[in-house]
Amino acid sequence: MKMALTEYQTRNTQQLNAWLDRIPQQKQALTQAMRYGLLLGGKRARPYLVYITGQMFELEPNALDTPAAAIECIHAYSLIHDDLPAMDDDELRRGQATCHIEFDEATAILTGDALQTLAFTILSEGYLDPISEPQRIRLIQELARASGALGMCMGQSLDLEAENRSVTLDELENIHRNKTGALIKCAIRMGALCAGAKCIEILPQLDKYADAVGLAFQVHDDILDVTSDTETLGKPQGSDQELNKSTYPALLGLEGAQQKAQNLLQEALLALQAIPYNTRLLEEFARYAVERSH
Amino acid sequence: MKMALTEYQTRNTQQLNAWLDRIPQQKQALTQAMRYGLLLGGKRARPYLVYITGQMFELEPNALDTPAAAIECIHAYSLIHDDLPAMDDDELRRGQATCHIEFDEATAILTGDALQTLAFTILSEGYLDPISEPQRIRLIQELARASGALGMCMGQSLDLEAENRSVTLDELENIHRNKTGALIKCAIRMGALCAGAKCIEILPQLDKYADAVGLAFQVHDDILDVTSDTETLGKPQGSDQELNKSTYPALLGLEGAQQKAQNLLQEALLALQAIPYNTRLLEEFARYAVERSH
Repeated sequence: MKMALTEYQTRNTQQLNAWLDRIPQQKQALTQAMRYGLLLGGKRARPYLVYITGQMFELEPNALDTPAAAIECIHAYSLIHDDLPAMDDDELRRGQATCHIEFDEATAILTGDALQTLAFTILSEGYLDPISEPQRIRLIQELARASGALGMCMGQSLDLEAENRSVTLDELENIHRNKTGALIKCAIRMGALCAGAKCIEILPQLDKYADAVGLAFQVHDDILDVTSDTETLGKPQGSDQELNKSTYPALLGLEGAQQKAQNLLQEALLALQAIPYNTRLLEEFARYAVERSH
Repeated sequence: MKMALTEYQTRNTQQLNAWLDRIPQQKQALTQAMRYGLLLGGKRARPYLVYITGQMFELEPNALDTPAAAIECIHAYSLIHDDLPAMDDDELRRGQATCHIEFDEATAILTGDALQTLAFTILSEGYLDPISEPQRIRLIQELARASGALGMCMGQSLDLEAENRSVTLDELENIHRNKTGALIKCAIRMGALCAGAKCIEILPQLDKYADAVGLAFQVHDDILDVTSDTETLGKPQGSDQELNKSTYPALLGLEGAQQKAQNLLQEALLALQAIPYNTRLLEEFARYAVERSH
């Protein structure tokens, strides 16, 4: 998978750069901070999921560039806002100074705002993509549902509200299904939706896969926060504990959390078995979600 | 105009309430803060402009509800983020505690984020509106262009960068054309675009009108910040001066600023003369922009 991931990362970066190049005020702090937040590092897991899901339906990469670029903008904006002093107050992200440290807090707020808008500019305008107008509308609906008060933002609100108190396993799952799961699911759905009608039958299986992988990704993140070190993570190790956040290792113990991640991996692989396409890359991604070191 | 404005305010409020009612977690801080930020007071100038421009082309209100609701979400989100401590640090807005005072800073950041997303949910999903898919795409393009790094967010960044230094009249105009003008222009353009092909010939004249009215609105705002009082304004009088913001009265003197507002009003009225439709409500709005007391 590594070769393919790098290839798509490069492709995604080129796309995002081209969109940023269209802003007339290149020297303005806002534009520079948008580039900083969007292009410095990052695994590009969500764009990658758009690409590999679409590829499964034999779509060419240029049919998937638009949703891949848009979803990375949403992800990048959410990280910039999550890192703000009033939220998680993180100074380090991907081994670099966070946006409000490199620039300032006001610029970081605006940068997140403008990156969210850019996602919808990208989806609505497209750029040499073969996406039809009804498909475009559908993609915008998906991304907006996954990232706002029905998805990511609600997850973040639930997470903030749960700080400094103990939560049940169900509550923790609900937080993560919204906070991170919704966008991962959206990446997979957008990749599929680009294939048009032939994705419809497969969507429920892809949703099952996405739900399991999204949660597995988060469980493994929680595990890494305990077992890894700051250098490998690119952000301060142990920061969840510091914020008194509920985590899977805290609720289930480290071994219990590892078992949970394995169970979710099996669930994801089972969901793929019912899909009559080549699901090798989605399988690899599921394994990667629970085996990666950062 | 007062009757019509109140009628449209009520209609817009009902629409926004209906969209907020669809969020499952009604008791969550995020949902409550979205309602607080979106529905407490506000002139609803942008929705009103959508309605009266569309009406000029003989559209029914239900053909305009969707863009009217979406643009108010963008406006409300921008106010919530502008009021944050890292930005203008305002505790009072429309005579009420600002969002981060009523709730907390993290919730206010998320609320602005989710309101921006809601704007694109509204435009892409619609609700019993007669908007075609190509029109929907066009409306999303317009709103995203006006509110992101090509419009409102860039204006806010330029404004921040200009604090505590003197700016020229051209720079000040550029700030306001982006910060507030872009969204006012967008309201008028969206109202027109809902009419389809027959708006195309008129768009350049409407743009001229919008540019003049948008700037006049801001010049008058600057004047009110000097001449009005906190109770009438619903926000602290003199707050521009306190932030060392460049304003029209500071650059041109109070009389010079008042003359500027009058000149812009004449420019707006002149642009309307070339429009072969009933422009009475747009005329009244232009006068209101430079005569209102808050």
